[in-house]
Amino acid sequence: MQLSINRESLLKAINLIAKAADKRHNMVILGNIKLQLSESELVLTASDLEVELTATLQLPAGACVQAGAVTLPAVKLKDICKSLPAQAQITITAKDKERCLLTSGKSRFTLGTLPAEDFPILGNPENITALTISRGRLLDLVHKTQFAMAIQDVRYYLTGMLFDVSAQQLTTVATDGHRLALARSVIDVDATLNMQAILPRKAVIELERLTLELSKLLGDNDNAVTLSFGREFLQVSLPFGEVDSTGRIGSELMVTFTARLIDGKFPDYRRVMPSNTDKLALMNQEKLTDVLRRVAILSNEKSRGVVLSFSGDGTVEIRANNAEQDEAIEVLQVKYQGEPIELSFNAAYIQDVLSVTQGDVQMHMSQSNASVLVNQLGDELHQYVIMPMRI
Amino acid sequence: MQLSINRESLLKAINLIAKAADKRHNMVILGNIKLQLSESELVLTASDLEVELTATLQLPAGACVQAGAVTLPAVKLKDICKSLPAQAQITITAKDKERCLLTSGKSRFTLGTLPAEDFPILGNPENITALTISRGRLLDLVHKTQFAMAIQDVRYYLTGMLFDVSAQQLTTVATDGHRLALARSVIDVDATLNMQAILPRKAVIELERLTLELSKLLGDNDNAVTLSFGREFLQVSLPFGEVDSTGRIGSELMVTFTARLIDGKFPDYRRVMPSNTDKLALMNQEKLTDVLRRVAILSNEKSRGVVLSFSGDGTVEIRANNAEQDEAIEVLQVKYQGEPIELSFNAAYIQDVLSVTQGDVQMHMSQSNASVLVNQLGDELHQYVIMPMRI
Repeated sequence: MQLSINRESLLKAINLIAKAADKRHNMVILGNIKLQLSESELVLTASDLEVELTATLQLPAGACVQAGAVTLPAVKLKDICKSLPAQAQITITAKDKERCLLTSGKSRFTLGTLPAEDFPILGNPENITALTISRGRLLDLVHKTQFAMAIQDVRYYLTGMLFDVSAQQLTTVATDGHRLALARSVIDVDATLNMQAILPRKAVIELERLTLELSKLLGDNDNAVTLSFGREFLQVSLPFGEVDSTGRIGSELMVTFTARLIDGKFPDYRRVMPSNTDKLALMNQEKLTDVLRRVAILSNEKSRGVVLSFSGDGTVEIRANNAEQDEAIEVLQVKYQGEPIELSFNAAYIQDVLSVTQGDVQMHMSQSNASVLVNQLGDELHQYVIMPMRI
Repeated sequence: MQLSINRESLLKAINLIAKAADKRHNMVILGNIKLQLSESELVLTASDLEVELTATLQLPAGACVQAGAVTLPAVKLKDICKSLPAQAQITITAKDKERCLLTSGKSRFTLGTLPAEDFPILGNPENITALTISRGRLLDLVHKTQFAMAIQDVRYYLTGMLFDVSAQQLTTVATDGHRLALARSVIDVDATLNMQAILPRKAVIELERLTLELSKLLGDNDNAVTLSFGREFLQVSLPFGEVDSTGRIGSELMVTFTARLIDGKFPDYRRVMPSNTDKLALMNQEKLTDVLRRVAILSNEKSRGVVLSFSGDGTVEIRANNAEQDEAIEVLQVKYQGEPIELSFNAAYIQDVLSVTQGDVQMHMSQSNASVLVNQLGDELHQYVIMPMRI
């Protein structure tokens, strides 16, 4: 294999996928990136057997000197490409089965390789259900719910995110048993399509990072991505090339995300949504964020409990205290309908919701020990449920 | 005690000193900041019994409602002040021996206190030798040598920085036994004054942070600071107020740094300076930095060894290899006088020196196993000695 390529092209592709390589995996080769070179394409693959990322680069004429495949240590390859000067031309030559030579200007790097044929393939979705959605919407669905996934839980299906297709909507749901986050988006599929899949936590985080990185690089230019759900895998294909004058994103660079799904049954989130709420509070998201940041300083370090006391006089008193008997109290203006009520929450659960909302937020309540529904005023596509703490 | 103060004034003083408080110290009160209020001044003190920082604020009329003293948890106090809105007016009232009330706008914080009279005082230098130096010079002396201090060493005097006064110069020296860094500055003292003091590592880092923070806040406005050396302590007084139209820095805010000195004898650094060097290389600092960053990627992870091979043909070959048999080689232009020579170094030692030099750097060498003197071309005030590794 021999490849001659511009540093920027190679680095862009490596930066998008290198995070999936796992230097500490038992299988040493998973610390490597696979480079598969044909006349017109370079395909780079990194994997930890849970998430596989593939970047496909269309090559200019002359880039492929000799087709072939090789694997190279991910971190070293990335560090070398980063450290070379901007616009450097890089030549990669597989010398034999064990060595690969990377040269650029007056720099020569000899790197150990492992055979490309030993690089494990995660697998491809079979019997797929494919749907398309804009990359911006996908990021919204993932970003605005991912914080509610469980970090560790014997109920392993909670350590992931539900992707639920029904009634021509794609709904993402995450819950750790104490709170739940839900986001919906209308999609263009057959009205009878019903499907559920649970994507593991690590894959969710990686998908969020990838879409966020692409959104940063492409600015306001959004484009459609394809989600292919199989029985065992979810594959997401994200085209990512130069933006033309009409704002269309070329497919010279394509990133493919593949992840193994969690085999389990997600709880029925519809049954968790509070329904008989008879108390409604409306608060400004920025102001509530500020007050909570202050009051939570003196909350218990572990439980992070804060008390919200709605008295019906147009204010809510928010207070916290800790084991050292410190106490913080602040009063905030609120539009409130209903009997006075006092609830105690983990401050972080409210703060997480506030971090993905803006303007005015509504809190629908019924009793001190019953779960609360939170949403941004006028936004029914994102809903958040928080269980109060026992006071 | 009752104090009414503007958030910005209080926060500025807290930010400068809070790092010295130590929440994990056996003495619980060292996690607190002491506030000592008189009619015209507020004095804040934080200490871990190795470094004590004191900030003195001149108060406007009416700020001191009732003189007195109190101690408050450093982290909580800092977090509360930070979280309050800009330009907020803060009132701190010591309610009794155990509680203190902090109010601002609609926020009320009740904090546990510990008696101010229990707050330990580190001590004051006695029989002092005082000298003045500009803050910029002091930062230069500390910043450009501190990286060479030992981190852990039974030769405890190496885990600090020597301040050496002789021949009307203040010289700072740091060495871990493998490399040495030295910086000098002419000072206005009696020609017969000879004095040595060793400041411990932690105090050096804190002094660097403090001077750097003041330099950032005051921009190009430099001012004189006073160093008072006693037998056991070094005290540095740094005035820090508003800058007037002539660029003078007012003393409404004064920060005092006090640290216990290391009781030991620092090695005679003059004997360590290489003298009979007959080979001289001149290299561009930026280019050498770039080459080393690249080549060091494939150096041994522990020893970080890189080989510099000067052949006398106008180039130096820089190479590294690691346990995985990876190898990096790059050739760099050099002005070189002398017989060919090859030396091996810990890349980090050269990189540390390059990070505090610019333009062209000189490397004075004699033999492959003899120490090397490095300095910036034309700068005799900063000198660096590096021992080669055994190849």
